Amino acid sequence: MPDVKALFFDVFGTLVDWRTSIARETEALLWPLGYSIDWLAFADAWRGEYQPAMAEIREGRAAFCKLDVLHRKNLDRILPRFNLESVPPNVLADLNLAWHRLDGWPDAGPGLVRLKRNFMIAPVSNGNISLMVALARRNGFPWDVILGSEIAGDFKPKPQVYFAACAALDLAPGQCMMVAAHSSDLAAAAACGLRTGFIARPNEYGSGKGSKAPKEPVDVDAASVEDLAAKLGA
Amino acid sequence: MPDVKALFFDVFGTLVDWRTSIARETEALLWPLGYSIDWLAFADAWRGEYQPAMAEIREGRAAFCKLDVLHRKNLDRILPRFNLESVPPNVLADLNLAWHRLDGWPDAGPGLVRLKRNFMIAPVSNGNISLMVALARRNGFPWDVILGSEIAGDFKPKPQVYFAACAALDLAPGQCMMVAAHSSDLAAAAACGLRTGFIARPNEYGSGKGSKAPKEPVDVDAASVEDLAAKLGA
Repeated sequence: MPDVKALFFDVFGTLVDWRTSIARETEALLWPLGYSIDWLAFADAWRGEYQPAMAEIREGRAAFCKLDVLHRKNLDRILPRFNLESVPPNVLADLNLAWHRLDGWPDAGPGLVRLKRNFMIAPVSNGNISLMVALARRNGFPWDVILGSEIAGDFKPKPQVYFAACAALDLAPGQCMMVAAHSSDLAAAAACGLRTGFIARPNEYGSGKGSKAPKEPVDVDAASVEDLAAKLGA
Repeated sequence: MPDVKALFFDVFGTLVDWRTSIARETEALLWPLGYSIDWLAFADAWRGEYQPAMAEIREGRAAFCKLDVLHRKNLDRILPRFNLESVPPNVLADLNLAWHRLDGWPDAGPGLVRLKRNFMIAPVSNGNISLMVALARRNGFPWDVILGSEIAGDFKPKPQVYFAACAALDLAPGQCMMVAAHSSDLAAAAACGLRTGFIARPNEYGSGKGSKAPKEPVDVDAASVEDLAAKLGA
């Protein structure tokens, strides 16, 4: 990959373990108040509203907003399913920021440190800037710059998100590689002319319930971010 | 400053020594081609076109563009003054990127490393994202995020640039501090409700030709970025 100058990373699932982190953060806030639910099922339900919530913005029927705003709408939507309507507003506001407190997969931070020596590295996530900053500070992700939805004013997999990231760095799409654990993200990036790197996350949705191999051809197929670094000579 | 969560930095002059860097880069490119001019005067002339070039965008008479584009227009404007019209186009393109190769003042990188422990740190410069990334990688500026003109779609001292930076981090203006060696930048930030930190750069325009003290009241008056870190307890 001699032409590749920048690596763009998906974050939720690819670099951070949203599922057990959201379950843990939810339990930490609600258990002391007397609530007892299936915390992992709650995390899955909240994440389940993620793609539908972005649809009307992607389709141009609503103005762009930060993912934090969509996360809050999605939270309000699932509260009745878990009998959580009585949770106080200040707790709900804090709970919504659980997405700012996700833990990285163990290889993510060390792998990014290695990759930064040879490449510009940036998140190209649907998460907003403040969320990305919080995750980076928490997990030691040494980003050169934060790109993604808030820079583009739209959500992946819309082409504008990938093109805006390339343009911000004055690079052609072929000089950039999208790295993700999700084949749909990589397929959309490839259609825009970017190179692609797959990271296996076999446990993203629970033990054994994640992607083990890319569903479409990719330029690099890696078992972890550190494996990606090794395969890219970093 | 217990409420301050983020520090926003001016870059040209405040963190990097544009004048001797531009002179050095210009000489490195043009001297081997047989050109001999007053390299520092050339740097001053190029920088002298900086504020006028942004004026028509600030005033809404032209669409926003990256500072790289304005730097190139300004370069073309001053070439005749130095009898440089015969410089080949590929050399001019490289010369324009001299602004990506500026050296930091010695205290800048170490001071930012200290400040990042206690604060979110971001450039809020009129420079474009790719330029900020290049300067950060060159000088070890450990930014959490790159904010500034390209995020805001306008140039300082327009209020939108300061407000967009605060909004990107979900912070109120009073939770942010603008840090600069230029009182005009600080006065504009203060008018938007931001805290202000002054950094003395007495040699920005040549020995003794820079700002030694703020022209208006500031929250913190520092001799360097490391002094700012000390005064903010970082």
